[in-house]
Amino acid sequence: MNKQLDENGRLKHFLTIEHLSRSLLIEVLDTAERFAPVGQRAVKNVPLLRGKTVANLFFEPSTRTRTTFELAAKRLSADVMNLNIEASATRKGESLSDTLRTLEAMQCDMFVVRHQNSGAAAFIADQVAPHISVINAGDGRHAHPTQAMLDMFTIRRVKERFEGLVVAIVGDVAHSRVARSEIRALNTLGVGEIRVVGPKTLIPVQISALGTKVFHQMEAGIAGADVVIMLRLQQERMQSALLPSAQEYFQAYGLTERRLKLANNDAVVMHPGPINRGIEIDSVVADGPQSVILDQVTHGIAVRMAVMSMVIGAQAIAGGG
Amino acid sequence: MNKQLDENGRLKHFLTIEHLSRSLLIEVLDTAERFAPVGQRAVKNVPLLRGKTVANLFFEPSTRTRTTFELAAKRLSADVMNLNIEASATRKGESLSDTLRTLEAMQCDMFVVRHQNSGAAAFIADQVAPHISVINAGDGRHAHPTQAMLDMFTIRRVKERFEGLVVAIVGDVAHSRVARSEIRALNTLGVGEIRVVGPKTLIPVQISALGTKVFHQMEAGIAGADVVIMLRLQQERMQSALLPSAQEYFQAYGLTERRLKLANNDAVVMHPGPINRGIEIDSVVADGPQSVILDQVTHGIAVRMAVMSMVIGAQAIAGGG
Amino acid sequence: MNKQLDENGRLKHFLTIEHLSRSLLIEVLDTAERFAPVGQRAVKNVPLLRGKTVANLFFEPSTRTRTTFELAAKRLSADVMNLNIEASATRKGESLSDTLRTLEAMQCDMFVVRHQNSGAAAFIADQVAPHISVINAGDGRHAHPTQAMLDMFTIRRVKERFEGLVVAIVGDVAHSRVARSEIRALNTLGVGEIRVVGPKTLIPVQISALGTKVFHQMEAGIAGADVVIMLRLQQERMQSALLPSAQEYFQAYGLTERRLKLANNDAVVMHPGPINRGIEIDSVVADGPQSVILDQVTHGIAVRMAVMSMVIGAQAIAGGG
Repeated sequence: MNKQLDENGRLKHFLTIEHLSRSLLIEVLDTAERFAPVGQRAVKNVPLLRGKTVANLFFEPSTRTRTTFELAAKRLSADVMNLNIEASATRKGESLSDTLRTLEAMQCDMFVVRHQNSGAAAFIADQVAPHISVINAGDGRHAHPTQAMLDMFTIRRVKERFEGLVVAIVGDVAHSRVARSEIRALNTLGVGEIRVVGPKTLIPVQISALGTKVFHQMEAGIAGADVVIMLRLQQERMQSALLPSAQEYFQAYGLTERRLKLANNDAVVMHPGPINRGIEIDSVVADGPQSVILDQVTHGIAVRMAVMSMVIGAQAIAGGG
Repeated sequence: MNKQLDENGRLKHFLTIEHLSRSLLIEVLDTAERFAPVGQRAVKNVPLLRGKTVANLFFEPSTRTRTTFELAAKRLSADVMNLNIEASATRKGESLSDTLRTLEAMQCDMFVVRHQNSGAAAFIADQVAPHISVINAGDGRHAHPTQAMLDMFTIRRVKERFEGLVVAIVGDVAHSRVARSEIRALNTLGVGEIRVVGPKTLIPVQISALGTKVFHQMEAGIAGADVVIMLRLQQERMQSALLPSAQEYFQAYGLTERRLKLANNDAVVMHPGPINRGIEIDSVVADGPQSVILDQVTHGIAVRMAVMSMVIGAQAIAGGG
Repeated sequence: MNKQLDENGRLKHFLTIEHLSRSLLIEVLDTAERFAPVGQRAVKNVPLLRGKTVANLFFEPSTRTRTTFELAAKRLSADVMNLNIEASATRKGESLSDTLRTLEAMQCDMFVVRHQNSGAAAFIADQVAPHISVINAGDGRHAHPTQAMLDMFTIRRVKERFEGLVVAIVGDVAHSRVARSEIRALNTLGVGEIRVVGPKTLIPVQISALGTKVFHQMEAGIAGADVVIMLRLQQERMQSALLPSAQEYFQAYGLTERRLKLANNDAVVMHPGPINRGIEIDSVVADGPQSVILDQVTHGIAVRMAVMSMVIGAQAIAGGG
């Protein structure tokens, strides 16, 4: 039924938050909690994935995401192969399917997939041999589940609960795989209220079906929020008819100190990065005491180590070294 | 005499199949046989090349070949440096000779060389310091000896012998370093009959001097064959006067189910990859029960581990871990 | 006061030779002396930086320098991330400061920085979190301190002292970060005489303030020298008004056998590489018995291992393995 789980209900692929149970998401968070101290140690490696081969299949370039997956894999002692697919096999006219078959035959254990098309990670998971796990590192507008889980990890670390929280997601929700995955995770983990905030052109009509409240006015949207998640604004949106200028966007939806005061006193500010200072967020806020943006980056390593170790089925006890 | 061997007759460089004895080729196959199970293990690394530095010198890009060498080196626990030479030193006008001297001075132990010019690997082996081994990963139209040996490994695994086998090599023999190395290996290992099959424009006149039978008609060429090796057709050939269209080529020389029936019932189909479906091979055949194309990829890792461990002179017992 | 040192006076960053004491430079050389034999061993790795993450931040491409730092880090058993910054984050409009914050949050331990702007490495060291060390791998015309130290190591190995030596630095001193760092190191280590030799257009007026003697005539400049350091001539200089043709430059300042005879009999010839044969140096001299150019490359690994282990604060005893 759920292709992400094996016959024993354990995580086999990590493609989307959809259809995953609350207990499984909690297991990801708890496992990441055990990996988080590893990054603080003098020796940041554990031998859990020693002798395993992780292939980073990036059909769309992303240094930041690729780097965090590569670091996570290396800290688990795996061998990592970086394959920029655009620049390689497809140049020779090889089909995606043949590229996957070939990498399987090289006895890779895990594919970390980034692709510009929605559904690409699931498509690949459907195709691969049984011994291979697929992790979605972002596919089109569809999903970015490790980003969502590192956000959940960050929220839980600060707020120590999900129940009753008011979470506002601000910006270009329409084009954001991050927002889609976050909304599903927040729903499954049982927050009190999920708000999406942005101009009509950037909020999809069907979004309220996911259990969100829609706000087109920033002040109302973040009033009383416990968590404010700012989305990255793609510069391309400005060139299309969807948005006026960056300045006008910032005036209407930019997170400023003044606006942040409308949220709860202990509200935290999040952003998946890289941030556009002065477009979606003011520098004072991004670098301010309520910002947990850099904590998100740090937690991203622990969460990716957790997911990698879970899909490999290793007993994810981060005690070794 | 034979620059590939050291004074004790052991493999020092691996540049070409030419001048290597039957017993040495068998040693490569037997060593690879010991490495093959490593890829099936939970921990796929052995410590044989720990503390060694392998430099992949790719003057011509090839993600697939580079990846298999990189994986083989990492599974032997070597440190691997990927150097895309086109993009680096030569930009600063440094000569090849100075680049090699510099890498030697960095105490590399092995150069894996891919070059567009025939003879480049041997040229480099002539130049390097005594402590460095050179492995040819394909030079011009000359040789691709690890590809030939993984093909031999695959044939031996399925057929359990070389004696008496009829092997047909089909396609662009004229431009194929793979075909040249295969013909020499098949000869040395004593197969019954080597056939080359293709249009006159793609079969060199002097090829029968290597002990091959030439066929310009596909059906006759594969009739009664035990092994059918399809070569990759470079798209450039179609743009030159050497070939008509891809469709006409497939009609005359494409491997279809119907044609494969002319070979022996237990014939196997091989291809060095990446395959051009519908040009040199029909998808039904490429994915069919007689195809061992993906086994070739898997065996490529074991064969490259074998060659690397032999030239390093390590006692290649794949038992560690 | 000196941002390169921690509160106990130990090396924290390695940005410039300036302000470093003689005893600290000697400590670098002595530590490198302990690492030098590692490169000769069958197993060239030591576990000193196991579990540490080294990020190579190259804002300006340099395969040679990047490769030596990568090798040095791998031989110390660190995990290495190569980040070509031009091609990555800045494409998404992220500021340098945010890129650094992000890499810090990924718990990197060391940044190796190459940048086209003078002062960039120090700027980055000012910005980074306390747990991160920065090593300057060349910034603009400012400094290239590991290159200077490997040159000092090479001189000490051959000459066994610095006192009383006459060292001539020949070529494009004006644009050379290597020359600047060498002059400071030679001064601190107390050589007898530092000469800079080159055309007026390539010798900065203020250079004699650094305690050097200026020569515009090659023969006079190298007469009686113990060490002749040839600088690399950037091809761009020829296109600007600063220099006539390569041939004229070679005629006036190229190091030939005839000219080298003017130096002391046991003088050594050095060059940071890659060399331009027939422009700044004759091939006969570059490959001749007085050349220690390839030794410099080898020593570069040991010196970089030394600096990396010192800034990490590890007890740099190269005895492990």
